[in-house]
Amino acid sequence: MSLIRGFGSDNHAEVHPDIFNSMLQANQGHAHSYGFDENTEAVEKKIKDLFGISHSNNLASTSSYFVYNGTAANILALKACLESFNSVICSDIAHINVDECGGPEVYGGFKLIPVKSKNGKISLEDIKTQFVRKGDQHFSQVKVVSLTQPTELGTCYSLKEIKEICDWAHQNKLYVHIDGARFANACVYLKSSFSEMTTHLGVDVISFGGTKNGLLAGEIVIFINPQLGNNFKYFRKQFGQLPSKSRFIAAQFQAYFDNNLWHQIASHSLKMAKYLEEKLSSFSEIKIIYPVESNSVFVLFPKIHIKELKNSKFFYIWDELTFSARLMLSWDSKPSDVDEFIEKMISLGIK
Amino acid sequence: MSLIRGFGSDNHAEVHPDIFNSMLQANQGHAHSYGFDENTEAVEKKIKDLFGISHSNNLASTSSYFVYNGTAANILALKACLESFNSVICSDIAHINVDECGGPEVYGGFKLIPVKSKNGKISLEDIKTQFVRKGDQHFSQVKVVSLTQPTELGTCYSLKEIKEICDWAHQNKLYVHIDGARFANACVYLKSSFSEMTTHLGVDVISFGGTKNGLLAGEIVIFINPQLGNNFKYFRKQFGQLPSKSRFIAAQFQAYFDNNLWHQIASHSLKMAKYLEEKLSSFSEIKIIYPVESNSVFVLFPKIHIKELKNSKFFYIWDELTFSARLMLSWDSKPSDVDEFIEKMISLGIK
Amino acid sequence: MSLIRGFGSDNHAEVHPDIFNSMLQANQGHAHSYGFDENTEAVEKKIKDLFGISHSNNLASTSSYFVYNGTAANILALKACLESFNSVICSDIAHINVDECGGPEVYGGFKLIPVKSKNGKISLEDIKTQFVRKGDQHFSQVKVVSLTQPTELGTCYSLKEIKEICDWAHQNKLYVHIDGARFANACVYLKSSFSEMTTHLGVDVISFGGTKNGLLAGEIVIFINPQLGNNFKYFRKQFGQLPSKSRFIAAQFQAYFDNNLWHQIASHSLKMAKYLEEKLSSFSEIKIIYPVESNSVFVLFPKIHIKELKNSKFFYIWDELTFSARLMLSWDSKPSDVDEFIEKMISLGIK
Amino acid sequence: MSLIRGFGSDNHAEVHPDIFNSMLQANQGHAHSYGFDENTEAVEKKIKDLFGISHSNNLASTSSYFVYNGTAANILALKACLESFNSVICSDIAHINVDECGGPEVYGGFKLIPVKSKNGKISLEDIKTQFVRKGDQHFSQVKVVSLTQPTELGTCYSLKEIKEICDWAHQNKLYVHIDGARFANACVYLKSSFSEMTTHLGVDVISFGGTKNGLLAGEIVIFINPQLGNNFKYFRKQFGQLPSKSRFIAAQFQAYFDNNLWHQIASHSLKMAKYLEEKLSSFSEIKIIYPVESNSVFVLFPKIHIKELKNSKFFYIWDELTFSARLMLSWDSKPSDVDEFIEKMISLGIK
Repeated sequence: MSLIRGFGSDNHAEVHPDIFNSMLQANQGHAHSYGFDENTEAVEKKIKDLFGISHSNNLASTSSYFVYNGTAANILALKACLESFNSVICSDIAHINVDECGGPEVYGGFKLIPVKSKNGKISLEDIKTQFVRKGDQHFSQVKVVSLTQPTELGTCYSLKEIKEICDWAHQNKLYVHIDGARFANACVYLKSSFSEMTTHLGVDVISFGGTKNGLLAGEIVIFINPQLGNNFKYFRKQFGQLPSKSRFIAAQFQAYFDNNLWHQIASHSLKMAKYLEEKLSSFSEIKIIYPVESNSVFVLFPKIHIKELKNSKFFYIWDELTFSARLMLSWDSKPSDVDEFIEKMISLGIK
Repeated sequence: MSLIRGFGSDNHAEVHPDIFNSMLQANQGHAHSYGFDENTEAVEKKIKDLFGISHSNNLASTSSYFVYNGTAANILALKACLESFNSVICSDIAHINVDECGGPEVYGGFKLIPVKSKNGKISLEDIKTQFVRKGDQHFSQVKVVSLTQPTELGTCYSLKEIKEICDWAHQNKLYVHIDGARFANACVYLKSSFSEMTTHLGVDVISFGGTKNGLLAGEIVIFINPQLGNNFKYFRKQFGQLPSKSRFIAAQFQAYFDNNLWHQIASHSLKMAKYLEEKLSSFSEIKIIYPVESNSVFVLFPKIHIKELKNSKFFYIWDELTFSARLMLSWDSKPSDVDEFIEKMISLGIK
Repeated sequence: MSLIRGFGSDNHAEVHPDIFNSMLQANQGHAHSYGFDENTEAVEKKIKDLFGISHSNNLASTSSYFVYNGTAANILALKACLESFNSVICSDIAHINVDECGGPEVYGGFKLIPVKSKNGKISLEDIKTQFVRKGDQHFSQVKVVSLTQPTELGTCYSLKEIKEICDWAHQNKLYVHIDGARFANACVYLKSSFSEMTTHLGVDVISFGGTKNGLLAGEIVIFINPQLGNNFKYFRKQFGQLPSKSRFIAAQFQAYFDNNLWHQIASHSLKMAKYLEEKLSSFSEIKIIYPVESNSVFVLFPKIHIKELKNSKFFYIWDELTFSARLMLSWDSKPSDVDEFIEKMISLGIK
Repeated sequence: MSLIRGFGSDNHAEVHPDIFNSMLQANQGHAHSYGFDENTEAVEKKIKDLFGISHSNNLASTSSYFVYNGTAANILALKACLESFNSVICSDIAHINVDECGGPEVYGGFKLIPVKSKNGKISLEDIKTQFVRKGDQHFSQVKVVSLTQPTELGTCYSLKEIKEICDWAHQNKLYVHIDGARFANACVYLKSSFSEMTTHLGVDVISFGGTKNGLLAGEIVIFINPQLGNNFKYFRKQFGQLPSKSRFIAAQFQAYFDNNLWHQIASHSLKMAKYLEEKLSSFSEIKIIYPVESNSVFVLFPKIHIKELKNSKFFYIWDELTFSARLMLSWDSKPSDVDEFIEKMISLGIK
């Protein structure tokens, strides 16, 4: 079905031209498949630099692995940390809990323990209440805390919050996973480098997203904790996530990391989101529900106008009970997209 | 690691320029994600035409589904036909049995019953011996026969062989699956259309390959039997195989199907394989092991020369016990590749 | 480790002598294994009578299946209702959610959606809030509501509550499962027959418990809805739950059902629980937390006395955060057990 | 359905009276559930003695675990040795391959590699041919060799054969598992103690059977290799195999091990099998197919007489293609059973 340009998803946006060009350049001559090509090796090195992972201290020769999409990245990253009798504490609205169709439980083969979120985040205090019954054979043993950064509601954990959760987790022999489908957006909002928001804080493994940040397709599972991921190549392969023509995923990330394109993309998306927020905040009849800390704005519109607004600039209704709307900005959003939407609101008589 | 141009794999080849261009053209403006874009819908229609699937007789609105790679296509296609207490009869050298790291069993959640192959194929006679113990609760109940066409050894089942297996299978309420990672090659070799080799014979579901035939990445699970695949969207999503920016996989297949590009690619690969076969057959010291019926040639070289030959034009040793070699041709293979390899053989004194 | 007689669990109790004798009587001569013996067939018929299941309207020849324990009964009963992309709404304190070590997710292969319970029960109102996103491929599709009757806290859903949940579920094409590990206790408390609390209300499948009600070991998965369970024999076998010497599980249930032994056992347990409740209620320093509606009493004791009380009559601390205690009565509990415990409390100075 | 006394299965036999009495004696007073009772602890100690397992060198406090049946014992024992990307080499007729309804693959979550058997056994030479592609991410990595002792055809591996397989396996960092559903029978035939046939040879883990040897129900997973089994309690629980009233399984094994009852039962069964073999060998029209080395005799009867013979003394047709019959002897078989069967053969005119 045809789509009206709008605020539907960063998945609706075009692939960034620099990223496309990088794939074109990689398309010259033969290359080894399944990750043994030069582009992939270059990205693996780059990742170690960006995340401050020692080039020698990883027990496995590799610490980063391409996969095709975010659901697979999450399932595999978590599976690598867990036995079948383990569980993962996550937010009740975590992508792994409500947007992966049960894949984590069914294919990851572990249990999720959802914790009630506030503004998309879960608190250390609430996490602690779920860490019970250690050694009790009747109870799935907690082993991982999974955080989404930025959260599904566009908010960000502060570095301090992540650090406190990591410290507590490690004291209790738990791992910390970050679902970073839009990770660069959090880094830009918090003015943090990749390593400052992960390795320096003690994060053990991250699902690092590319597709929602201007790539055609590509995510990376990055094991920061050198104890993890040593047999990951087998897990990835048997889960159907080993890319054969790996050089083309690599080429995308080469462009994404080169010249700080990642920063440029995320900065623009954030700027557009803040611009939209600013414009919306002048309407008394609409309500911005959560702090705007990355590239999305969650809004309560007057219900009678939702249909026409969606027809003007497409967006999704986030919650079928409250009718809250998610407006997502991306690298190719333009100020005119916002301006035209605001004009539509005015023309509808929204105040 | 850097790769010497050669006969390593059709995965080592470049993406065909027409396919790349098609992706570029699709990269204009916003598009719906997760398969609801116009490119995807166009391919779904095209598939129905090519496979002779009625546009109305499928219980599901969709009969074809993109996935990222061949292992996933196989696991999901089979899972859609099976309950956990079912098993699949396949060749002992089937990709699903020896090249998917146990994924079919572990993630498909079913049992494989390998049958000894001859020239890569399994016979109906041998298949029948495994169809036993119907209704016996102790025995995983056979439900699918899976054939690879062309086989992993580059040979092809005749249309008659497939028909007989389909007829017998349906008489016994079994399904027939085709692993068609290089399906177009078989169609060209046997001078058959897609529908003539599947729908007309009674094939129920096929893993239709793109990546090994000039695409960047993309496979299609096609349900020909309208009883199958009705809940496939959920299976695909939870297995991490729902492409977000689906338009780009679609665009690749649009180019692949348009102007019979698929036929041109497969014809060229086959022609190159036959050319290599012809050249090799003049050497008395080397042995061509299997009939050359698609884009691969399996060869026994004098062991002492294997290393130097591989350094000249890369190829894989297929069997670590017999040292048989697989030489794979692709859309970008050139007569000069063959000629240079033959010259190398002569220079090594191979007769 | 040696155990002091007390209120630890109905699993701590002896096997009822009538049940033991029935096994002894079954131990005469050869009998078919795997469920084809005469004792098993007799119980299958008895179950149909007791639950008001038509002897002819079940599509499968069988509607009840023995398994070894309650965790297996729950996992298998639910698996039989579900595809891998389905989920089960249950109470946050349901046995399937917190006492089966993740088995339902990992081995059942589905998702649980826990709902906050009140006095161990979940309300239809709260259940409805979780029935969302129908047809959305990203979301595990709700298919079953699972109720524990009596609940893990010893309370009972009224017949009306169950009926309303069943009616709503069926309107929405969902199934209702009952975890009935102590089902007879609820029937006695609510003065209901088995059929009145299941078949008459619309319950689709029940995990019917024996072990906690005086048996040595044995549970039954009973499919009341004739659409369910048709391939259950295979699921049971491959999950390692097909009893070889089935006659001995059957013999236990024969005794349990004969002469209303089940009623006698449950009545005694309930009477003892009410006697304990009555005695405890005279102490101002202790608090009975939940209504006593089956064979357990949940109590807050003064913390400083817990250890000595446990040494006097063993019981379990239920919640490691609140130190609430569960006192469980069984068919072999005696008034003197209660009296001695109360005397101990008095001797400790509890008021 | 009613059963004619015969040679159907050791599962058709009565529970041995000593074993029944032991359960009765255990049924006195309260006992801890889930394995923390005194009977269970006594058996755990006894097992260590019988298998020559150091009472201190096991990293886990426990090395033996009760489960309900043999299929579960095998699945769990193997799962404890494996990651999901591992495979198990076994015989093509192994119980795990053809009599557990796909449970090992589906619930164990690993791959089986069946090897053609001769007289029920697989040779080290043939095992070695399957140990290929080490480190290849596309190939499920072999990790365990599973042997059935005695085999499904009633034959026995010699101690030397087991030793050689263990030695080779350990050199290659593989484990050796024994499916010992009828293990005592092999020990008696080979005049070996439990430890001499396992620990002394290097066996890592055994599924030790009770049910087919006179128990009501009960098997033990015994980890001899102290590196294995440390988290087994969780695996067992989540698979629905943690016995609540564990004391009664323990009591059965107490009787089984006391006064060498196990030896007495196995010796009698073997003696009866040899007696049947001797009697059958005088008929020229019937053929004994495999060496009789435990409690079963496999026979080819004249096809026209099979039905009447089965009606005389029940037995199973083992192979629906060849009509070979399995005649199974047990602790309660009598010489008169054999004599009456032979008389029937004579009366039918079999020569």
